[in-house]
Amino acid sequence: MDIEIGKGKTARRAYGLDEIAIVPSRRTRDPEDIDISWGLGDLHLDLPCLASALDASIDPRAAVVIGQLGGLAVLNLEGLQTRYEDPEPVFEEIASLPEHKATRILQQLYEEPIKEELIFRRVQEIKAGGVIAAASLTPQRVEKYHRAAIEAGLDVLVVQGTVVSAEHVSQSVVPLNLMDFIPSLDVPVVVGGCASYSTALHLMRTGAVGVLVGVGPGRICTTRGVIGTGVPQATAVADAAAARMRHYFETGDYVNVIADGGMRTGGDVAKAVACGADSVMLGSAFAKAAEAPGRGTSWGMATFHPTLPRGTRIKTRITGTLEEILIGPARENDGTLNLMGALRMSMATTGYQNIKEFQKAEIMYAPSFHTEGKIEQRSQGVGMG
Amino acid sequence: MDIEIGKGKTARRAYGLDEIAIVPSRRTRDPEDIDISWGLGDLHLDLPCLASALDASIDPRAAVVIGQLGGLAVLNLEGLQTRYEDPEPVFEEIASLPEHKATRILQQLYEEPIKEELIFRRVQEIKAGGVIAAASLTPQRVEKYHRAAIEAGLDVLVVQGTVVSAEHVSQSVVPLNLMDFIPSLDVPVVVGGCASYSTALHLMRTGAVGVLVGVGPGRICTTRGVIGTGVPQATAVADAAAARMRHYFETGDYVNVIADGGMRTGGDVAKAVACGADSVMLGSAFAKAAEAPGRGTSWGMATFHPTLPRGTRIKTRITGTLEEILIGPARENDGTLNLMGALRMSMATTGYQNIKEFQKAEIMYAPSFHTEGKIEQRSQGVGMG
Amino acid sequence: MDIEIGKGKTARRAYGLDEIAIVPSRRTRDPEDIDISWGLGDLHLDLPCLASALDASIDPRAAVVIGQLGGLAVLNLEGLQTRYEDPEPVFEEIASLPEHKATRILQQLYEEPIKEELIFRRVQEIKAGGVIAAASLTPQRVEKYHRAAIEAGLDVLVVQGTVVSAEHVSQSVVPLNLMDFIPSLDVPVVVGGCASYSTALHLMRTGAVGVLVGVGPGRICTTRGVIGTGVPQATAVADAAAARMRHYFETGDYVNVIADGGMRTGGDVAKAVACGADSVMLGSAFAKAAEAPGRGTSWGMATFHPTLPRGTRIKTRITGTLEEILIGPARENDGTLNLMGALRMSMATTGYQNIKEFQKAEIMYAPSFHTEGKIEQRSQGVGMG
Amino acid sequence: MDIEIGKGKTARRAYGLDEIAIVPSRRTRDPEDIDISWGLGDLHLDLPCLASALDASIDPRAAVVIGQLGGLAVLNLEGLQTRYEDPEPVFEEIASLPEHKATRILQQLYEEPIKEELIFRRVQEIKAGGVIAAASLTPQRVEKYHRAAIEAGLDVLVVQGTVVSAEHVSQSVVPLNLMDFIPSLDVPVVVGGCASYSTALHLMRTGAVGVLVGVGPGRICTTRGVIGTGVPQATAVADAAAARMRHYFETGDYVNVIADGGMRTGGDVAKAVACGADSVMLGSAFAKAAEAPGRGTSWGMATFHPTLPRGTRIKTRITGTLEEILIGPARENDGTLNLMGALRMSMATTGYQNIKEFQKAEIMYAPSFHTEGKIEQRSQGVGMG
Repeated sequence: MDIEIGKGKTARRAYGLDEIAIVPSRRTRDPEDIDISWGLGDLHLDLPCLASALDASIDPRAAVVIGQLGGLAVLNLEGLQTRYEDPEPVFEEIASLPEHKATRILQQLYEEPIKEELIFRRVQEIKAGGVIAAASLTPQRVEKYHRAAIEAGLDVLVVQGTVVSAEHVSQSVVPLNLMDFIPSLDVPVVVGGCASYSTALHLMRTGAVGVLVGVGPGRICTTRGVIGTGVPQATAVADAAAARMRHYFETGDYVNVIADGGMRTGGDVAKAVACGADSVMLGSAFAKAAEAPGRGTSWGMATFHPTLPRGTRIKTRITGTLEEILIGPARENDGTLNLMGALRMSMATTGYQNIKEFQKAEIMYAPSFHTEGKIEQRSQGVGMG
Repeated sequence: MDIEIGKGKTARRAYGLDEIAIVPSRRTRDPEDIDISWGLGDLHLDLPCLASALDASIDPRAAVVIGQLGGLAVLNLEGLQTRYEDPEPVFEEIASLPEHKATRILQQLYEEPIKEELIFRRVQEIKAGGVIAAASLTPQRVEKYHRAAIEAGLDVLVVQGTVVSAEHVSQSVVPLNLMDFIPSLDVPVVVGGCASYSTALHLMRTGAVGVLVGVGPGRICTTRGVIGTGVPQATAVADAAAARMRHYFETGDYVNVIADGGMRTGGDVAKAVACGADSVMLGSAFAKAAEAPGRGTSWGMATFHPTLPRGTRIKTRITGTLEEILIGPARENDGTLNLMGALRMSMATTGYQNIKEFQKAEIMYAPSFHTEGKIEQRSQGVGMG
Repeated sequence: MDIEIGKGKTARRAYGLDEIAIVPSRRTRDPEDIDISWGLGDLHLDLPCLASALDASIDPRAAVVIGQLGGLAVLNLEGLQTRYEDPEPVFEEIASLPEHKATRILQQLYEEPIKEELIFRRVQEIKAGGVIAAASLTPQRVEKYHRAAIEAGLDVLVVQGTVVSAEHVSQSVVPLNLMDFIPSLDVPVVVGGCASYSTALHLMRTGAVGVLVGVGPGRICTTRGVIGTGVPQATAVADAAAARMRHYFETGDYVNVIADGGMRTGGDVAKAVACGADSVMLGSAFAKAAEAPGRGTSWGMATFHPTLPRGTRIKTRITGTLEEILIGPARENDGTLNLMGALRMSMATTGYQNIKEFQKAEIMYAPSFHTEGKIEQRSQGVGMG
Repeated sequence: MDIEIGKGKTARRAYGLDEIAIVPSRRTRDPEDIDISWGLGDLHLDLPCLASALDASIDPRAAVVIGQLGGLAVLNLEGLQTRYEDPEPVFEEIASLPEHKATRILQQLYEEPIKEELIFRRVQEIKAGGVIAAASLTPQRVEKYHRAAIEAGLDVLVVQGTVVSAEHVSQSVVPLNLMDFIPSLDVPVVVGGCASYSTALHLMRTGAVGVLVGVGPGRICTTRGVIGTGVPQATAVADAAAARMRHYFETGDYVNVIADGGMRTGGDVAKAVACGADSVMLGSAFAKAAEAPGRGTSWGMATFHPTLPRGTRIKTRITGTLEEILIGPARENDGTLNLMGALRMSMATTGYQNIKEFQKAEIMYAPSFHTEGKIEQRSQGVGMG
C-alpha cells in the first residue's frame, strides 16, 4: 500500500528490525534441540553468521578463530592487511590518534597501495588455520586482484560495495559484468549490498551463492545521514527472501540471503532470520572482541573516503572474546554477547526447530518497542534455566 | 489488519500499554465506592495484584505483609530462599557487589542446589503469617519439587517460565504434560507466561485457574533485546481476554487473565485491566519496598542464566513501605506508590464500578503520549480530593 | 476508524497538539488587523486566555493584572488564599522547602480549613482592581462555598475537577446535580474538565457558558501517568467543538469551548484554537511570571492529595512579567512569552482574521515534528518584521 | 487520505525529510558521471544550492566565494550589511555578547535604519567578484529598496518572508501586488516561502523564475514552536513540484522549486531533490564556514523581531571552509561537509544521472530512521572509493 508523500509523489512504507518482534508459537522447545546450521553453496556452516570485512575487526588470526567456532569471517583484501607488510604498527598508530586527527590520518594511511603478494599471503594465513577462507573485493578492483586470492586457496569470494547493482553504468571505464564474471570463477561468490526485490533477483541471476542485503539498513547508519539512501532492514530482507523464492522457482537454485548491517544484539539477529535471512553478516559486533586488531577502536571502510568520508574512527568497548561474542557463555547482559546462543534461545522459546522454519515465524509490528533504555527485571527467566 | 513488512512477509500490529489511554465515560464515581476485589479459583482477594517471584522483592516476610494487605505474593521456590538455609548473608553480599562483578557472582551463587526441606520450610513460614501462600516453580522442575510445597500447605502453585506453551517439544527429556499434571494436583494452578490467543486458550484448557500474560511486554524488557521475542502488553492482554471468553463459552469455567510485566505505574495497572486483565502481576515495583530482601538492589531470574544472562543486578531506589506501594498513602508523585489507590481513582474518574465493568472501558490509541518526562502541573486535581 | 488493540478490543485513534501543525492558507494578513477577542456569556474579553486556578500562579493581585491586560484569571477558592488569612509566609515556606519534604509539607499545609470570610475577601480584592472576577470551586464543595463568592461580587464561577461529568454517582453523598445547580445561579458558570463529545454535550446542557476541555491532555501530564486516563488535546478539543455545534443547533446557545492544559507555547495555543477552541486556559505558563505568588516554584492542585498525590512542587524559571508572558514584548525565544502576540502572528501568517475563522483553519498531521530540540535559524523571519 | 483528528476536524498527513529514504534503483553509476547543474531563468548554475540571506552566513565576500564555487548566495538587503557602513565591529559585538543579553542587543542593533547607498554598494561588491549577484528583500520593503539593488547590477532578486502569499490583506497599507510587481522588473525574481500546492501555483503565476518552499519545515524550527504553523518539507516540496507541473502544462514555463530550510546534511539535500526540488536553499550550513561573518555565532532574521523574537543567537561550530562545505573534500563525517559531493554520490549510488531524473527517484517512508545518534560502521564503503 503506497503512501502519498505529496501530490504525485508516493512512497512505500518500509520497516526496520527495531519495529518488529517475534511472536511465540503454540510450541516451545529445548535450546539444545535447535539446529542453526546452514549451507552456503556446497559449504556447510555451523553458525549462520559472517563477520564483515572491517579492518578493525578481522585479520587472518581473528578469521581463523571465528572459522573454528563455526562462523565465517571475511577478510578485507583492500584494507590495511594488503597494503602493509606489517600492519601492526599501523593499527597501533590508529588506536592512539586523537579524535580530531583520525579521519585525516586514516585517509593518508589508506593511500598506501594494495599489494598482490600480500593478498596471496593473507589468504594463505587463513587457510593455514584450517578453516574456510573468505575475503572481499569491491566491484572496481575484483578483476584485478581476485586471482591472487584464489591462487592462495580462497574458498569464498565476496564482491561488495555500498550498493552493487547488476547494471553499473560508467562513462570512463567498462564496468564489471557480474553476469560474465561470477560464472567464470571456480570459487563460490557472495555479492552485495542490495536492498530491493529486483536488485536481489538480478544479483541472484549472476550465479552468486549468496546475496548481501543491506543498504543504510539501520537508523544510525552513516550512509543514510550522508547520502540519504537506505532501506530499513526488515523490509529489505523480506523483499530479498521473496526474490530468493522466485529465483528458486525459476531455476531450482537456492541463493542465500545474508542480512548485512543494522543488527547489534542477538534479538536483531533473530529478527533478521525471522524476516527471511539465511544468515547474518555482523560488523561492529566483532570490533568489540579482545582479539580484534582495532585495539578498542573501530572504523568503517567509508571512513577514509578521500573526498566524502562517512563515519569516523570510534572508541569501542572490549566486551569479551570472539568466542564469548559468538557462542558464549555471556557474562554481560546487553544482548551483544553469545549472539548465536541468543538466536538458539529465541527459536526455542518461540518453538521453531531450524533456520528454514524460523524464516516463517510470526512477527508483529510493535513500534512501542522502539525506545531502548533501562533494564526491566522479569521473573520468568527461570523457565529457560 | 495485517501489515506488509516486505514482499510475502506480513505482521500484525501490536500495541503497548504506553500507547493507549483510558477515556472517561459519561459518569464519574466516588473512589470509595469502587470494588476492585476479584476471585482466583475459589479464593477471594481484595486487591487485583500479585507480586512476582523475584528474589529481590519477595521473601516469606514480604509475602506475609502483602497477603495481609490483600494482595498475593508469589515466592520463588528456585531462588535463594530454597538454596540457602540462611539467605540473609547472600543478599548482603549481592547488595554490596561492584557493578562489573555482579552477574558473574550471581551466576555462582545460584549454582548452590535447591533443597526440598527449604521449600517446605519457606511455604510454612508464609502460612504461619495467616495468609494465602503462593509460590512458583518452572516447568522443568515443578514435578520434582511441587510435593514439598503442597505438603507445607501451599494454596496456589504458579508454574512459570519466560514462555510456557501447552506443547513443549524436547529430544532429551519427556516434557511436563500440563494437561495431565495440573488436574492431578489438589491446589489451584496459575500458569504462564504466554502472549497469544491460541497459547492462552491452550493453557486455559489445562485446568489452570489463572494464566500469566506477558512475554517481553515492555519496551525496556531484556527478553526483547536479547532474543527479539515479545508481544506488547495491551495486545497480549486483550488477546488473552478474548481467549478467556471463548474458554468460558465452551466450558463454563472462568480462567483469570493476569497481566504480568510491562507495568510500572498505577496508570499502567489501570490500562492492563481496561484491556481485559482480571489482575496484574508486578515485579520490580516491590523491589522498591523498604521490606524488600534486595536491600536496594534488584535482579531478574534470567540475570544469572549460566550462558545467556539477561538483565543485570541494578540499584533501585527505596520509595516506601510495601503498604505505601500497594495501598498508600503516597508521599511521592511518580505513579509508583499507592498503586491500588490509583486503580481505584482511575475507575472512579472514568465511571466504572468494578473490575468486570472496567475491563470494557473505552480506550484510545494515543501514541503522542509515549514520551515520559517532566511533570505538568494541573489545577483540576482538587475535584477528586 | 477504530483500531484493533487485540481480539475484541478496539480503540479510537486520538491526536495531541504536538502531532499537528497549522497550514498557511492562500492569504496572509497584517498581525495588527487580527481580532482575537471573544465573548464568554455576556462578557466581552480582549484575549482568549484564562489563567488556571493554580495557587502558585494566581492570587488576587495577579488576577487583577491579568484582567487589566485583557485576560481572565481564575482564583482557586479551595487553595491557600482561602485557608490562610495571610498566605504570604506559607508561600515563603513552600518556596524554601527541600525537594524531599515538599509533598509531605504541602499535604499538611492544605489541611488548614477553608474559611468563608476569606472566600468573600479574596473575591472582593479582585473586584477592587476593577476587573472581571472569576474563581473556582470543586463539584464537592461548590454548594457549600459559592454563596460567599457571589455575594462578594464574583462575575464568573468555575466548577472544576480532574473529570467532571453531568452524572456523578455516589453511595455516600447526594451528588451535585449540575442541571439544577447551574441555572439556579445568577452568575455565568464555566464547568469541566471533560474530554469527549458526549460529556461536553451533557455539560453544555447544564446551562454553563463555557466548558473546560482537557483530561490528561499532554504527554507529560501526571493524570495520565498515575491513573492512566486522558485524551490527547487536539482530539478532545475537536470533539468538544463538534458538541458545541450540535448544542447550538439544538438550542441556539453558543457555549464556549475552553482548551485547558497541554499547552506550553504560543504555537500550542494557536493549534488549540485551530482545532476548535474559543479560548485557552493556561496553568504553568503563569507560574513563570515575576508576579506569581509561587516565587519560582509551582505545584498542581493534586500535588497535595492526602493519599494519592500527583505531581510535585517543582522549581520554575521566572521568564518575565505577566504582561510579557501574555502580550509581550518578548525578549526570549522559546515560545512561552507574548503568547497572544504569537496567536495573532499565527493567524496573520496563515491568513485568518478572527477566532471563528481560525477555528476552521486547515491543519496537518505531522508527527515528524514531535521532537523538540535545538533551534534552527531561518532567514525568512524578516517578512513579518 | 484525510485523518480524523476529532469529530468534524480532519487533517492531511504530511511527511518530513527525516521520515523518508531514497531507494537504490536497479542501476548504479560513477559519481563523476552525474550532472547536478540546473538553470534558474536564463542563468546556468553548476550547483543546485542557494545560500539563505542570513547575516551570520553571507556577506559580499562569502557570496563571491560561493558564486565562484558554482552556488548562488543571497545577500540580505535588510540586514547589518545595509544598516552599517562598516558592519565588522557589529559582528564582533554580537559574537562577544553573553547569552542572556543577545536577543535584546540584537533587537537594538537592528533598529539602525537601512541605507539605500549601502544596498547599492553591497550589490556592487558582489558584482566586483565576477559572480551572479542575488539579494533578498521582504514584501514590505521590496518596492522601496529594489531599485538601488538593480541599479548596482543585481542579477536575481529574492522576495522573501516567513510566508508569502499572492494575496496579502492589509487594512493599513496597500499591499504589494506581486502579479504586477514581478513582471515589471528587468531581473528574474525568486519568491517565497510557501508550503502548499495552491500558494506555490499562485506564486508561479506571478512570473517568478523560482519559488522558495518551506514554512516551518523542520522539526526543530522555531516558527513551528512559537506560532504553530508549518508543513513538513517532504510534503511541501512534493506539492510544489506538482504545482510546477501544472503551471508548466498551462503556460509552458518551468518555474524552479527551491526547497528552503529543514535540511542539514547531504542526505537531506538529496531527499529534497528526490521529492521534486530543482535546488535547495541552505542557511545554517554556511554559518559553520570559516569565512562566515558570524564568527562562530548564528541567528535568524526573526531573532530580533521587536515584539515576538523567534530563535536566538547561537554558538555554532566552524567545521570547514565554504569550499569544504559545498564541494569538499570533507575531513569530517557528520554529513554536513561536501554537501554537493554527497548529492552526487547519492545519485550515483541509486543510479540517477541528473536532477530531472533524480526528482523521480523511488522513495520509502521509513520512520524507524528518525532517531539520530551514534555512528554505525559499515564495511561496504569501499565500493564507492
